[in-house]
Amino acid sequence: MPQDSYTPPEVWTWNQENGGRFASINRPVSGALQDKDLQVGKHPFQLYSLATPNGQKITIMFEELLAAGHADAEYDAWLINIGEGDQFDSGFVEVNPNSKIPALWDRSGPEPVRVFESGAILMHLAEKFGAFLPKSGPERTEALNWLFWLQGSAPYLGGGFGHFYAYAPERWQYPIDRFAMEVKRQLDVLDKRLAEVEYLGGAQYTIADMATWPWYGNLVLGRAYEAGTFLDVDSYKNVQRWTRQIQDRPAVKRGIMVNRVSGDPARQLHERHDAGDFETRTQDKLSGKG
Amino acid sequence: MPQDSYTPPEVWTWNQENGGRFASINRPVSGALQDKDLQVGKHPFQLYSLATPNGQKITIMFEELLAAGHADAEYDAWLINIGEGDQFDSGFVEVNPNSKIPALWDRSGPEPVRVFESGAILMHLAEKFGAFLPKSGPERTEALNWLFWLQGSAPYLGGGFGHFYAYAPERWQYPIDRFAMEVKRQLDVLDKRLAEVEYLGGAQYTIADMATWPWYGNLVLGRAYEAGTFLDVDSYKNVQRWTRQIQDRPAVKRGIMVNRVSGDPARQLHERHDAGDFETRTQDKLSGKG
Repeated sequence: MPQDSYTPPEVWTWNQENGGRFASINRPVSGALQDKDLQVGKHPFQLYSLATPNGQKITIMFEELLAAGHADAEYDAWLINIGEGDQFDSGFVEVNPNSKIPALWDRSGPEPVRVFESGAILMHLAEKFGAFLPKSGPERTEALNWLFWLQGSAPYLGGGFGHFYAYAPERWQYPIDRFAMEVKRQLDVLDKRLAEVEYLGGAQYTIADMATWPWYGNLVLGRAYEAGTFLDVDSYKNVQRWTRQIQDRPAVKRGIMVNRVSGDPARQLHERHDAGDFETRTQDKLSGKG
Repeated sequence: MPQDSYTPPEVWTWNQENGGRFASINRPVSGALQDKDLQVGKHPFQLYSLATPNGQKITIMFEELLAAGHADAEYDAWLINIGEGDQFDSGFVEVNPNSKIPALWDRSGPEPVRVFESGAILMHLAEKFGAFLPKSGPERTEALNWLFWLQGSAPYLGGGFGHFYAYAPERWQYPIDRFAMEVKRQLDVLDKRLAEVEYLGGAQYTIADMATWPWYGNLVLGRAYEAGTFLDVDSYKNVQRWTRQIQDRPAVKRGIMVNRVSGDPARQLHERHDAGDFETRTQDKLSGKG
């Protein structure tokens, strides 16, 4: 496995033994596996997520909105443990029929509105608060060019390179070569762009940066798939400059702690229900309580 | 190849012999390979494309805008032959530094504006003409949920399933199983949604449908990768209903002819510079001139 000169069957059938890491959560059908409601907190925005790169996009955005003075961007962030199948609870499927994190109930209006897909959530919040995305003109267009670039490119990094380099049951040369080449091309596209401008959209920090940083920023920091050396990430000097600039933002430092359940325990805030949670968490950790 | 128990090198290097179909156009670096300007026609919108699914999204949108009475959506559609490397011409890289079709120069304002990524082009045109995307409210949010769903899902269909089922140098079981399962899950997500509503965003036909139809509509019609039987596409009854409903739209019939260079010659309009081109083309074909 994989077999050379393999002949696929006429009709594909599901073999549950052939999945690699995450095999237990990948299925050829959609929908709820169990009847279970989502929890709901006190704030206008109810986020159901996990601190994967797609999850980090949204917690960074919320923390940036709050830091910019949008007090009505307060949110509860609930943990969705995808390894345990929380994304197949009936309540989660209602907010995202695609069963992927992040998903959001916006309860700020007369009726709750569901928002799913990290790119759509970023757009929704940017338009709602008039923040981090120019409202019109060429600057809006260029920011959206790069936001959509990210949404279509990251699957080659996560579902392609990351899967075959780090998670598949074995390592095979062809898919690793295929996706490593594409990821390096993507890094080069970003590097040339960031040689010309401070942020992806131009002079302003926008949702295009917040979408891209968790994927390509974490990658060039060597935090993703232990692939920093393999992909020679240090050679992308402009991506490195932009990554470190964004990493230094206080809202980003807070955002990436939310719904985080791995790595340094002092940087994990499993759920976030109040701005004070970050401080409490840090104090708990410092005093050995956490 | 691929080798079982393969050990990747410490640092990835480019082996140009290991690419499968399209190997000649995949590179680990970006940027122009040759100095060559784009052609420019008379209309406000200059589209540089090819009738792949991503290309079809935009020619369908232009034809829908014109059919809806937006006379100022007139466009020139120029052919970008990706097999011959047109996407690496300096003029093309200027409009899309990512070297992928479709790309658009919007010359309707005081300064030309570049728009790239098919999702961004759809957004740009929808906002410019106030068409095929609700301007605000829950209906806008839901349409954008599905537009972003498509942009993040299609790479698993095209760059994942399609590549390993139809284009890779050999067939291997693991990647085919992995991506077939995901594509079937995606089809099931669409099928359940389209059991509840007429169009992806709800009651209205939007850019979410125009984005999704060329990928999943062509797939369930058996036109993509000769994989209709393998994926049992006939079982997705609601996707079939929605696919045929959209296929019957005159603007869609025109849109999918534009920049098409394969299949039935009577359905190919290599370049489109005038609304009359469709009729001329058909007459040429009928009289044996084309």
